[in-house]
Amino acid sequence: MVEESQKAVVLLQKGEIKIEDRPIPKIEDPHFVKLHIKKTGICGSDVHYYKTGAIGDFVVKKPMILGHESSGVVVEIGDKVTSVKVGDKVAIEPGIPGRYSDVTKGGRYNLCPEMAFAATPPIDGTLVKYYLAPEDFVVKLPDHVSLEEGALVEPLSVGVHANRLAKVSYNQKVAVFGAGPVGLLTGAVARAFGASEVVFVDVFLNKLELSKSFGGTKFVDSSKFKDENDLIAEVEGALGGAQPEVVFDCTGAEVCIRAGVRVCKSGGTYVQVGAGKENVNFPIVALIAKELKVLGCFRYSFGDYRDAVQLVANGHVNVKPLVTHRFKFEEAIQAYDFNVQSGSEVIKTIIDGPE
Amino acid sequence: MVEESQKAVVLLQKGEIKIEDRPIPKIEDPHFVKLHIKKTGICGSDVHYYKTGAIGDFVVKKPMILGHESSGVVVEIGDKVTSVKVGDKVAIEPGIPGRYSDVTKGGRYNLCPEMAFAATPPIDGTLVKYYLAPEDFVVKLPDHVSLEEGALVEPLSVGVHANRLAKVSYNQKVAVFGAGPVGLLTGAVARAFGASEVVFVDVFLNKLELSKSFGGTKFVDSSKFKDENDLIAEVEGALGGAQPEVVFDCTGAEVCIRAGVRVCKSGGTYVQVGAGKENVNFPIVALIAKELKVLGCFRYSFGDYRDAVQLVANGHVNVKPLVTHRFKFEEAIQAYDFNVQSGSEVIKTIIDGPE
Amino acid sequence: MVEESQKAVVLLQKGEIKIEDRPIPKIEDPHFVKLHIKKTGICGSDVHYYKTGAIGDFVVKKPMILGHESSGVVVEIGDKVTSVKVGDKVAIEPGIPGRYSDVTKGGRYNLCPEMAFAATPPIDGTLVKYYLAPEDFVVKLPDHVSLEEGALVEPLSVGVHANRLAKVSYNQKVAVFGAGPVGLLTGAVARAFGASEVVFVDVFLNKLELSKSFGGTKFVDSSKFKDENDLIAEVEGALGGAQPEVVFDCTGAEVCIRAGVRVCKSGGTYVQVGAGKENVNFPIVALIAKELKVLGCFRYSFGDYRDAVQLVANGHVNVKPLVTHRFKFEEAIQAYDFNVQSGSEVIKTIIDGPE
Amino acid sequence: MVEESQKAVVLLQKGEIKIEDRPIPKIEDPHFVKLHIKKTGICGSDVHYYKTGAIGDFVVKKPMILGHESSGVVVEIGDKVTSVKVGDKVAIEPGIPGRYSDVTKGGRYNLCPEMAFAATPPIDGTLVKYYLAPEDFVVKLPDHVSLEEGALVEPLSVGVHANRLAKVSYNQKVAVFGAGPVGLLTGAVARAFGASEVVFVDVFLNKLELSKSFGGTKFVDSSKFKDENDLIAEVEGALGGAQPEVVFDCTGAEVCIRAGVRVCKSGGTYVQVGAGKENVNFPIVALIAKELKVLGCFRYSFGDYRDAVQLVANGHVNVKPLVTHRFKFEEAIQAYDFNVQSGSEVIKTIIDGPE
Repeated sequence: MVEESQKAVVLLQKGEIKIEDRPIPKIEDPHFVKLHIKKTGICGSDVHYYKTGAIGDFVVKKPMILGHESSGVVVEIGDKVTSVKVGDKVAIEPGIPGRYSDVTKGGRYNLCPEMAFAATPPIDGTLVKYYLAPEDFVVKLPDHVSLEEGALVEPLSVGVHANRLAKVSYNQKVAVFGAGPVGLLTGAVARAFGASEVVFVDVFLNKLELSKSFGGTKFVDSSKFKDENDLIAEVEGALGGAQPEVVFDCTGAEVCIRAGVRVCKSGGTYVQVGAGKENVNFPIVALIAKELKVLGCFRYSFGDYRDAVQLVANGHVNVKPLVTHRFKFEEAIQAYDFNVQSGSEVIKTIIDGPE
Repeated sequence: MVEESQKAVVLLQKGEIKIEDRPIPKIEDPHFVKLHIKKTGICGSDVHYYKTGAIGDFVVKKPMILGHESSGVVVEIGDKVTSVKVGDKVAIEPGIPGRYSDVTKGGRYNLCPEMAFAATPPIDGTLVKYYLAPEDFVVKLPDHVSLEEGALVEPLSVGVHANRLAKVSYNQKVAVFGAGPVGLLTGAVARAFGASEVVFVDVFLNKLELSKSFGGTKFVDSSKFKDENDLIAEVEGALGGAQPEVVFDCTGAEVCIRAGVRVCKSGGTYVQVGAGKENVNFPIVALIAKELKVLGCFRYSFGDYRDAVQLVANGHVNVKPLVTHRFKFEEAIQAYDFNVQSGSEVIKTIIDGPE
Repeated sequence: MVEESQKAVVLLQKGEIKIEDRPIPKIEDPHFVKLHIKKTGICGSDVHYYKTGAIGDFVVKKPMILGHESSGVVVEIGDKVTSVKVGDKVAIEPGIPGRYSDVTKGGRYNLCPEMAFAATPPIDGTLVKYYLAPEDFVVKLPDHVSLEEGALVEPLSVGVHANRLAKVSYNQKVAVFGAGPVGLLTGAVARAFGASEVVFVDVFLNKLELSKSFGGTKFVDSSKFKDENDLIAEVEGALGGAQPEVVFDCTGAEVCIRAGVRVCKSGGTYVQVGAGKENVNFPIVALIAKELKVLGCFRYSFGDYRDAVQLVANGHVNVKPLVTHRFKFEEAIQAYDFNVQSGSEVIKTIIDGPE
Repeated sequence: MVEESQKAVVLLQKGEIKIEDRPIPKIEDPHFVKLHIKKTGICGSDVHYYKTGAIGDFVVKKPMILGHESSGVVVEIGDKVTSVKVGDKVAIEPGIPGRYSDVTKGGRYNLCPEMAFAATPPIDGTLVKYYLAPEDFVVKLPDHVSLEEGALVEPLSVGVHANRLAKVSYNQKVAVFGAGPVGLLTGAVARAFGASEVVFVDVFLNKLELSKSFGGTKFVDSSKFKDENDLIAEVEGALGGAQPEVVFDCTGAEVCIRAGVRVCKSGGTYVQVGAGKENVNFPIVALIAKELKVLGCFRYSFGDYRDAVQLVANGHVNVKPLVTHRFKFEEAIQAYDFNVQSGSEVIKTIIDGPE
C-alpha cells in the first residue's frame, strides 16, 4: 500500500503545536530529490515562534510545519539529478532562493527576496517524514559522518558564513561573545580557519567549559563584570594585552555589542551574528577612529553548507558535544515545551525520526 | 639677511588665537622638503579646537599652530629628494605616520599610532611661512591647478578615501547625507568613480543647490521631514523607488545615521565619514537582515592624496565652488572668529599667504 | 493567419551559409520572453566558423543558425516575467547558463559547463525573426538608445568584463593591444572606469585613428617596430616613461602578449582578452620578478550586460562609430562573404532585420 | 678587548669562496638591532651564484658575503627599539626595502626598487658573526622554537607568501609541482590554511616520501610519465577525477608549468613560485577558456615572516625534517662544494655558527 499522508509537527498558532496529517509531496521538478527526514535540531527561532508567534516581520498567520535543521536519506530522485542517489545520507540546506534574482547570481542567495526558508512563515519546515529539496541544496555525508552530525551542519554553516564574511585567516586573534550553539560553532570554525586565539565570552560557566571543545583558547566569564569597561579590559587581558582582530557577537545583547566593537583592534572586523532588540546604543565614534569594518551576518549562502560538512568530515570541528538532549519525533511537542521551560543547561536538542 | 623667525597662527588655549613668532625650521632628514605655505583652508576641526579646546581625547594643553589644509611651493629640498624640485607647487598631506608600524607597511597609515598630524594636539599645524614635510607627503600640482585648489585637496582626499573604502564602482546608486565640504566632495568623487546616481540629503537649501556642482543628481531637503521614516521614503522616491547601494553619512547626526543604514540596499555598504556624538541609537537588526557592510572612515591613507590631485587636474572634480570666503594670513584671527560666528552660508574659508 | 515558420541564417557547414525555414519557437518556461530580433552584429567568431567550421574544440557538425550580437523588441512574455513588457527594446545576452551549477551561483556563470551560447555549436544563434530568452538575460534599452547600439552591447560587455576582472580604477594607466571592436570598447570602458591614460597599440592607422573616439589618450603604431623591445620602449615612451598598471591584450598575437606582459608595471595586472594560437612563448620570469597578476577573460558574466547598457545610456561610451557597414537580413550571406573577404577597413558590420 | 673584525663567508667570484675578515658593523640607525648569527640555511640561489656568478640581471661583480636564511640572537639594540631585547632569539628577514616607496607603503615591499636583499649582488649576506637589521625585520622566536627552525623560517615565508597570494582557504584542493624545500613548505602551509587535499608532484621518490611530512595527501611520481597529458591525467586521478583549485609550480620547468596551468580547475588560481628559464611555451588559450588567475610569486612581503614563525610555533608546520645536512661555519666552503656536487638527497643544509 502506498503511503499518501504523513505526520507533521505543526505550529498552529502562538503556544500551540500539534502533530497532524499532511500529504506526502511528489517530485515535480526534475532537479529535486525526495528525502526521508532522520534528525532535526531545535533552533531558538522555532522556540521563539512557538512562544511569541513572530520574529520581527515574520508572523505565524496560519499553521506552519516546524523544523529546519535536518538531515535525511534520499529516497527518490528527479530525472535530472546527478549529484546524489537513492540511499545517500545528506545534510539539508533549508532555504531555497529564487534562481533568477541578482543576489542569487551574485553569490549571495541568502539575501534573495524570493527565499523560501523552512519554518519561516509561511513556509513549511522539515518536521515530516518526506521532504523535497533541490539536489544542490542537499550535501552528501560521508559514511563516517552520522545523521545527527548532519543535522548540526545547519548551525555550523552559520559559523562558516560568519568566518567567511570576516575573512578569518591564519594567525588572527578572535573574540566570540556568546557561547550558545552558533557562538561555539563560530569559534570552532575560526580555529579551523587558522585563528591562533579564540576568546569566548559568556555569562554561563557550563557554556564556557563547553567552549574548550570548540576551539576556545581563552575564556571570559562575563557574569563577573559590572560594566562594559571591565569586560573590555578582561578580554584584552585574556589576550595578553592585545585586541582581537575579529569579533563575533553571537548574543545580540547591547552590552556585548558595545564591548565587542570597542575591544576590536584598530582596522579590525566586527561581525553581528546574533539578533536581539531592533536598536542598540552603538559606539559610532569608535567605528570611525579605528576604521572598523562592521558586518551583518544572515544565515549562510553559497558554499557554506558544503564547507560545513567538510569541517565535520575532516574532524576539524566536532559538533557532537553540542547535543545535550534527544526526543523522539512522536515526542516533538514535549521537546518544544522542554526548550521553552529550560535554561542554559540546554545547548542543542535533537528530534529523532520519524521512523 | 637670513630670516630666522616667522609668524605663526597659534591657538594658545580654548578661545584664544594669536599670531606669534616661531623659529624657521631647518631640513635635517634628507628625505624632507621645505615649503613656503601659500593657501590654507579652515577646517571644522580647527574651529572646534578654537571653540572648545578639544576633540574627543585630543586636548589642547599647550599652544599649537593651527592649519592642516595647505598648499605651498617647494623652496628647498633634502639631499635624497628626487620627486619634487625647488619651485614646484604642491599639495601638502598633513599627517606623517611612523615608518615602522604594521599599519603603515600594510597600506593603512592613517591608523598609525605614531601619526603626527598637523594641528591635532600636540602637533603644530601649517599656518606659518616655512613648513617641513617628507617628499612622499607632498604631491606636485600641474601648472593648470591653482594653489587654492591645492589646499582643497585635503578635504577632497577624505572623499577619495571614503569612496575607495566603499569600493564605489560604475553604475552604482549612492546617497550622501550632509552637503558640507566633505559631503560635497565625497559625492563628487562618487560620480567620478562611476556612480550613476548621487542623492544629496541636507537641511540647507543653499548646500543642496551647491551640490548640483558636485555630482548631485537628486536632492532631498531633509528639513521638511518629521521623522526618519519619511526621510527614508523620500530618498527612495528620489531614486525612483530604488535603494542606494552605497550610503555615506557625512553628518554624524543620529537621524541621518539611522536613516542611512535603513535606506541602504540589502547587501550594500554604509560609510561613516562624519563624526558627531560618541554613541547613537543604531538599527542593528537592519544590519543583520540586509547583511550590510558598515565602515568607519578616518582621514585618508596611501594613494588618496595623489588621486585627489588627479581628480582636480583631470577636471573630474571642480573644487573651486567650495570657496565662499577668503582672508589674508594677517587676518587669520578674524577668519577663525568669522567661522565661529557664521552659519550655513560658509562652505570653505581660505587663508591666503603668508607672503 | 498565424506565422508558423520563419527565415533563419544557417551555417550548413564550413563555407556554406543558406537562409532556410525554421519553426517559430513557443514560450514554455514562464520566465522566458519572445523577442523580435532587430539588429545583429557580425562577430569574428561567426566569420571564423564560416571559414573553417570550428573554433578550438567547438566544431560545426550539423547546421547551426548564426548570430549572437543582437537586440530586439519583446513581443510576448511568460507568465512569471516581471522585469520587461511587450514593446520594450532590449539588448539580448546570448549565453544561458545552467541555474544549478556552482559557478553560476558563485557569480561566474560564463564558466558554467552547461552554458548554451548562441551560435556556438551545436546551439542555434539569433539570426531569425523570433527568439526566446529568459527575462534576466535581456536588458531593457532606454528610449534614447537605439537598437543598433543595443546590438553593440554584446562586444561592449566583453570590455566591461575585462575591466572588472582587472579592477580598473581611478587614475590608472592602461595599455590596450589591438584596436578591433573588443579592444576599442575595452579601452573606452577603462576610461569610463577612471583610467587617466589609455594607450592603444595597433598595426592599422585607421584603427588607431578610430581609437581616439574610444578613450585613447596615446597611440602606438606597432607596424613600425622591428622587435618586441622597440615596441615596449614605444609604449613606455607614450606614457612619459611610465609603465601601464593594467594591460589588455585583445589580439592573441604572440608579440603583443610578450610585449604586454613585459611592459606591464611591477605589481600590475595583465588581461588576456583576445585568443589566437593555443600556445605562445611567454616571459615567465618577468611574471615572477614583477609579481604580475595575469588573468584570462572569457566572454562576460553576471552584471556586465547591465553595466554595458548603462555605459551607452549615460553617454560614457559611444558605440556608434564602430559600425562601418550595414546589410539587410535578406543580404546576410553577402554580409558574411564581405566580412570574409575584407580587411582592416571593416570594424563592425550590422545586419538589419528581419522585418 | 673589543672585537673589531669578524670572519665572513665571501663569494669572491664565480667558483671561488673564501673566509675573510670583515669589520664588525655598528648600530647607527636607532631602529636597528645587532645580531649574533647562529644558523644559516644554504639556498639554491647561493649555490647558483657560486656556480655561475649570476642569476638573471644580478651579477656578482665584486666580493659578496653569502647567506640569507639566518637566525640569531640579539646582542645590542638601537635607542628606539622596543619590540625585541638583548638575548632574544630571532628569525631574520633578509631584505630591507626603502621606506618611502609606493610599494612599501602599499603593502608589497618585496617589489621595492630600493630593496637591499642579503646575498643578492651587490648586497652582503648574513654569513658573518655580527649582522645589523631593523627591528621590524626580525621576528622573535618563542622559547620552544629552535634557532635551526628559525633559519628555516626564510623558505617557509615563501610558502606563506605563495598561499596568501593564492588566497588558499578551507576545503580547497591544491597541487604542488616540485617537492624541494620551497615546494614542501608551500604544500605544508596550504594544509595549515585549510586545504583538504595537497597533491605533490616530483620526479624523486625520496622527496615525495618526505612530502608526507609536509601536508601531502596524494603523491604523483612524475618520472613515470612520457608527456604532459599523462601527467595531467595522473594529477586528476589522484584527486578522484577532480582538478585542483590552486596550483603552485615550484619548479620553473616548462613541462610542470604547462601541466599545472592545464590541470588547474576552471576559475582557479595558478601561482608561479619557482623560476627556471626566461621564457616557456605556455598554454594561453587554456588561460582564457578557464578564466584562470596566474600569479607571479616573488620572495615574501609584509606579514609573511611573522606568520611563518607562528606556523612553526603552533606546530602547524614542522620544518625540522627538511634538514638533511649540517656543517660548521668554519666548514662553509665544504658546505657549498657539497651542495654543488650533490643531488636530490640534499634537501636543506644548515651552517652552524659562527661561535
